[in-house]
Amino acid sequence: MSSAAASEKAAGRPVIALALGDPVGVGPELVAKIMAREGGWPGANIVIVGDRWLWERGQKIARERVATRTVASFRDARENADPRQPAFLPLDTVRDEEVTLEEATAAGGRSALRVLEACLDASVRGEVDAICFAPLNKRALKLAGMKHADELRHFAAYLGVGAYVCEFNVVGGLWTSRISSHVPIKDVVNYIDRASIVDAASLLYRSLQRYGLAAPRVGVAGLNPHNGEGGTCGREEIEIIEPAVRALNESGLPVVGPYAADTIFLRARNAELDGIVTMYHDQGQIAMKLLASGKGVTVMGGLPVPVATPGHGTAYDIAGNGTAVPDALDNALTMAFRMAASK
Amino acid sequence: MSSAAASEKAAGRPVIALALGDPVGVGPELVAKIMAREGGWPGANIVIVGDRWLWERGQKIARERVATRTVASFRDARENADPRQPAFLPLDTVRDEEVTLEEATAAGGRSALRVLEACLDASVRGEVDAICFAPLNKRALKLAGMKHADELRHFAAYLGVGAYVCEFNVVGGLWTSRISSHVPIKDVVNYIDRASIVDAASLLYRSLQRYGLAAPRVGVAGLNPHNGEGGTCGREEIEIIEPAVRALNESGLPVVGPYAADTIFLRARNAELDGIVTMYHDQGQIAMKLLASGKGVTVMGGLPVPVATPGHGTAYDIAGNGTAVPDALDNALTMAFRMAASK
Repeated sequence: MSSAAASEKAAGRPVIALALGDPVGVGPELVAKIMAREGGWPGANIVIVGDRWLWERGQKIARERVATRTVASFRDARENADPRQPAFLPLDTVRDEEVTLEEATAAGGRSALRVLEACLDASVRGEVDAICFAPLNKRALKLAGMKHADELRHFAAYLGVGAYVCEFNVVGGLWTSRISSHVPIKDVVNYIDRASIVDAASLLYRSLQRYGLAAPRVGVAGLNPHNGEGGTCGREEIEIIEPAVRALNESGLPVVGPYAADTIFLRARNAELDGIVTMYHDQGQIAMKLLASGKGVTVMGGLPVPVATPGHGTAYDIAGNGTAVPDALDNALTMAFRMAASK
Repeated sequence: MSSAAASEKAAGRPVIALALGDPVGVGPELVAKIMAREGGWPGANIVIVGDRWLWERGQKIARERVATRTVASFRDARENADPRQPAFLPLDTVRDEEVTLEEATAAGGRSALRVLEACLDASVRGEVDAICFAPLNKRALKLAGMKHADELRHFAAYLGVGAYVCEFNVVGGLWTSRISSHVPIKDVVNYIDRASIVDAASLLYRSLQRYGLAAPRVGVAGLNPHNGEGGTCGREEIEIIEPAVRALNESGLPVVGPYAADTIFLRARNAELDGIVTMYHDQGQIAMKLLASGKGVTVMGGLPVPVATPGHGTAYDIAGNGTAVPDALDNALTMAFRMAASK
């Protein structure tokens, strides 16, 4: 195939923005590692985005050299696609001397946000089909002035999304969302209401469809031990969760449950479920961390553009020593690609 | 070795009572299956206890013939030990026509309790060193008049134990106990107090020592997401759990924690902990069911005699068809033996 023909064919491929993440975490190293892997993502047009010196440092830490073509914009990357190598879009967001490895700083947080906002802007213009970003650091983002509780809310506000959004934790083929998150156990019950369960299950169902599953199997977890034991061990299943599942079914979504929290993950492991709506943070996270072995992915549900990121954090403690394992970022990029391809 | 010499040597072996459990669950079948396994328990003097017709039926369902020596009492079993085959101690507690396969009945519950009380009586007389029982059915026990919340409380009352008792769930090398059990999530916080945590961790530590670990590594889980995030996501860690761990340390027990619930099981899987004190039912059970694959064991902590039973139930739905998997009972018997041997 001639270079011109290859470029024409590649121009039809989805453009995936791949952001380096927090500049002093393991992100740049992880990006270098997954881009250096043989085989790569032949169906995708991947655009690495960030400061040039950071991308250079990431490759140095990873002890990898990645051949890229430098592009001037995401549009340039789409129009001048090349299936043989990823593009690199240099931005100028932070200087080396402004940040220190392994430390959350306002300059680092500002840099990560500027890169991601450039990706979001490009998605609005139709120049980017999905975004995958290496880990961010919440403290750095807050030092940089992020007002929202987390990056998902920040992105939603940035894009003007007013509808329900939530994070999904994804391990292997299993997606989970949660009704309550960072709240004390004693307050969890105050977050369990019918509308939230309906919203969360609907968004999970639609997101799995968007991911390419024609008929997703979504289950809802109970709140109490043994699913409330018929009302003798808590009544939220009877009064809130079961009515929510019925409402979902009446609206045409074949969601099942509630199932006892200590067995619903066994069903998922037996490949009987693609998604689970959990009621509180640790109900999902205890299981997902055991199932994940560090390879889990976070998908942002409810945004107009598919966004995925590794489930782990910036790992400041090992940043710079070259030992970071890129499996979760690899999975996140694969998911971003699949979501872009099935749009 | 002559038969007489073998018998003399075998007389020093711990006597393990192995009860058939609920008569219409999978218990008799499971006992037949583990007793038919090659190799067996050469260090133990195992005494199968229950109605003769039930033991016959269990072997028939399992399609196994187990050679046993019939004994008149546990004392008889100890004095006339034979390392080549288990003993069978027939009791007369229930007739075939009084019970129906796969159904919880008062007659079935009474039978199971009478067999277990005979084992407990023998342990008080020093004739039994440990008890392993096949699954019971709580509904049948209640129909039979059991007044306590569960069999552990019943056994404790029967033996006149007034001190703290609790069940341990055991999977592989990991033991867990819990501060609250069958209570609604909204009420969990009311059960989290310093004395309960100290009692539970102390009993877990001592029970692991009794099991043969010289220096058990016991950890305590936090209650809230991310261990309360320094008090911003729940204060029970700071106000209750940390002081409990300090009190344990001051009393000479090197218990560690609290650790976040969604990572403490990863430590255990990495063999960094032998025991975990959990705060509520699903915090432990979500993890343990994922780790167990049906092989988990329940150990009764705080009784004067070691008692172990499979973590699963009577499985009425498959009782009688010969497909029950005996791995958990196998593990329970192994643990009962080990606890008896290290007394």
